[in-house]
Amino acid sequence: MRAVDVITKKRGSLLNPKGEELTKEEIEFIINGYVEGKIPDYQISALLMAIYFNGMTFAETGVLTGTMLHSGETMDLSSIKDKAPFVDKHSTGGVGDKISLPLAPLAAACGVYVPMMSGRALGHTGGTLDKLESIDGYRVGLSPEEFVKILKNGGYAMTGQTKAIAPADRLLYALRDVTGTVESIPLITASILSKKVAEGSDCFVLDVKYGSGAFMKTAQAAEDLANCMVNTLKAMGKKSVAILTNMQTPLGRKVGNFLEIEESVEILQGKGPEDVKELTILFGAWMCLLGGKVKTVEEGKALCQKAIENGSALQKFFENVAAQGGNVEKLKADLNVRRSPYKKELFAKEDGFIYIDAYKCGIASCSLGVGRNRTDEAVCPDAGMILHRVSGDMVKKGDLIMEVFGKNEECFAAAMPLLEDSVTYSAQKDSKCSDKLVLKIIE
Amino acid sequence: MRAVDVITKKRGSLLNPKGEELTKEEIEFIINGYVEGKIPDYQISALLMAIYFNGMTFAETGVLTGTMLHSGETMDLSSIKDKAPFVDKHSTGGVGDKISLPLAPLAAACGVYVPMMSGRALGHTGGTLDKLESIDGYRVGLSPEEFVKILKNGGYAMTGQTKAIAPADRLLYALRDVTGTVESIPLITASILSKKVAEGSDCFVLDVKYGSGAFMKTAQAAEDLANCMVNTLKAMGKKSVAILTNMQTPLGRKVGNFLEIEESVEILQGKGPEDVKELTILFGAWMCLLGGKVKTVEEGKALCQKAIENGSALQKFFENVAAQGGNVEKLKADLNVRRSPYKKELFAKEDGFIYIDAYKCGIASCSLGVGRNRTDEAVCPDAGMILHRVSGDMVKKGDLIMEVFGKNEECFAAAMPLLEDSVTYSAQKDSKCSDKLVLKIIE
Repeated sequence: MRAVDVITKKRGSLLNPKGEELTKEEIEFIINGYVEGKIPDYQISALLMAIYFNGMTFAETGVLTGTMLHSGETMDLSSIKDKAPFVDKHSTGGVGDKISLPLAPLAAACGVYVPMMSGRALGHTGGTLDKLESIDGYRVGLSPEEFVKILKNGGYAMTGQTKAIAPADRLLYALRDVTGTVESIPLITASILSKKVAEGSDCFVLDVKYGSGAFMKTAQAAEDLANCMVNTLKAMGKKSVAILTNMQTPLGRKVGNFLEIEESVEILQGKGPEDVKELTILFGAWMCLLGGKVKTVEEGKALCQKAIENGSALQKFFENVAAQGGNVEKLKADLNVRRSPYKKELFAKEDGFIYIDAYKCGIASCSLGVGRNRTDEAVCPDAGMILHRVSGDMVKKGDLIMEVFGKNEECFAAAMPLLEDSVTYSAQKDSKCSDKLVLKIIE
Repeated sequence: MRAVDVITKKRGSLLNPKGEELTKEEIEFIINGYVEGKIPDYQISALLMAIYFNGMTFAETGVLTGTMLHSGETMDLSSIKDKAPFVDKHSTGGVGDKISLPLAPLAAACGVYVPMMSGRALGHTGGTLDKLESIDGYRVGLSPEEFVKILKNGGYAMTGQTKAIAPADRLLYALRDVTGTVESIPLITASILSKKVAEGSDCFVLDVKYGSGAFMKTAQAAEDLANCMVNTLKAMGKKSVAILTNMQTPLGRKVGNFLEIEESVEILQGKGPEDVKELTILFGAWMCLLGGKVKTVEEGKALCQKAIENGSALQKFFENVAAQGGNVEKLKADLNVRRSPYKKELFAKEDGFIYIDAYKCGIASCSLGVGRNRTDEAVCPDAGMILHRVSGDMVKKGDLIMEVFGKNEECFAAAMPLLEDSVTYSAQKDSKCSDKLVLKIIE
């Protein structure tokens, strides 16, 4: 087999411009050959560009995902296979998106086992691992043995992806980044799923976000990705549901690392903002359904509601914090108290209905220290914003819109103008205020 | 400027799937950066694949061609600029295509100055340089000074492309060959023209062939290439005409190296096969027209006819052979006498009208020693075929179809079955027999 023939097959010809479906053998030859250094990057980048143009079937994307995940280690959950089906949740990322934090303990409280591997903040989006690490002592770098033990005892465990997971994805992503081949639905799908499936779950609830603060800017692009992910998982013999959600404005009232831990605790206490509550319970319900704990989504919602009301979900959360090395007492004492000493306030510049743009807010939060622009930068646990007013609220000039916390005094020079710019004022509510939070559910 | 942004611009986006036209600065940045080793091959191959899918405008192709040709040396004809306009001919290659050999002296006899840089045989197609070198002593590796002197004195000179000509093309071609990006009309155009224009001509007669023995297998693909070449040259301020010709069956009666020298001499003697004669005179007429020697193609044909009849074209040919180191007396003595000692005959297997497929014939001739599969292989000057019957002829079983000459005895084992397979027999003439030799002329 020659790489050039595989490229040409995918590229197609004058008579067959959309190319042909690649076989399992061809995809394995390419991916394994690349990881082993036998196929040079210039052939891989040409193939990636051909895939950008001609796409891949769900079967091809499934094989690609499988080959990428088997390029490295996978989490072995066989010792606790009586806890299956394992159910995980993935989000394509957003601003103020802390759903994973209350969701994992909520699902665990309902009897679902959740092995969760999460990512770091990058650019305008936050990262679950950075949020967890804002809890004193919390360790996200678990060994496989620790991960399985914590999952078995507590119903869920949170960890980061090690370098041993899907090395093919790291190689391919670095190449895609410099060759204009990032924006391909099947390649995005294979990149996300190769890492997700490697963690050993059987079922997946996928939060596919659209809007300025999301990776997919339009609802259509997000729907395409959602479809591809669900069908690819189907081709791989996995169950999943994709929920298309709105990420045009920040989610909830708190954006940051420890600030989002606080809001997650509020949700588990039956408090917190309506949008975060709605998504947490909806995703929780689907995790219960896929995990076989209920027969309908409505039953799942009721079960989740109960786990919040009786305090079992919050209990699961504190147990996990303790199990992963976090200081629970300090965490409790810090809630709504621990703040960065560097603080500013943003006041309304005029009267009117406001709208807060998620992307601009995310970029500002990154300069405050919530996130990072390069993977080797550190984040600040206490940076972020508390939104006193949100999109659709009516304000008077001078009203407090948000409290802003920075990693230092200097960061405000860049962040405050960005935040000012993230807020628009108008006589009528912005039409985006009537957009639904949950646009579509794709099974 | 970043290479990834240029790739993405050409690749396009969801809203603009055909991409945007690249600027001169962007194309120069990419090509010069690649030649200087500043841009890695994996970015170039991704861009080439994006060009395969999204194409290039004639203006872009012109800039690409210009940048590639200026990546190396160009022939300096300024010392003989009173001989301008210089006119060259290019063929996309075929089987039995020896037209350049009689054409250059014919045009020179009509007063046109022809600086001709030619190529080597590769795969199923022959090469003008290999044919010339079958003449004892003939040198194709002229220094620029020798080239200009011979051109000035004799009206034409024949040489090979040196490594100093268009190094960007060599780099790009090697990369395209292994990344499935050969079959792109603008990239093919830029590759051909960057080398052709570097030789200093002002006008170009382009023989764009279609059919099994050609690079372009269909008439439509050949027409697309012809259009792109003519319009790209226009964008570069050069005059040209492209003539679409039939390469479904071998051209003429002789295929080989010295065998094609023989047939070229026949043409210059006013003899030889009709198809070779027709093309030689048609191309010659266009060279006269572009070179300003006549006002119409018909006048050009008459001028060429005269140069053949009065022997001046043949005289030019022998003068050139002498000027480039060839032994004219030996050449004359060798004509129709010098033959390889390894000979076979191919007889008709059945009664019927025959058709000889150019591609299969070309592949067979390559194994006889006419051509080569790798650029470092040697060719045999006396290998080849003499066709006693051609496509459309009626044969009886046992009739002699061709004499076959090999580089050694062993080569027939592979070549003869291929040649057998190149001939088909049928009760009616093959429909391809009614296809015109000259399909279209594109100015």
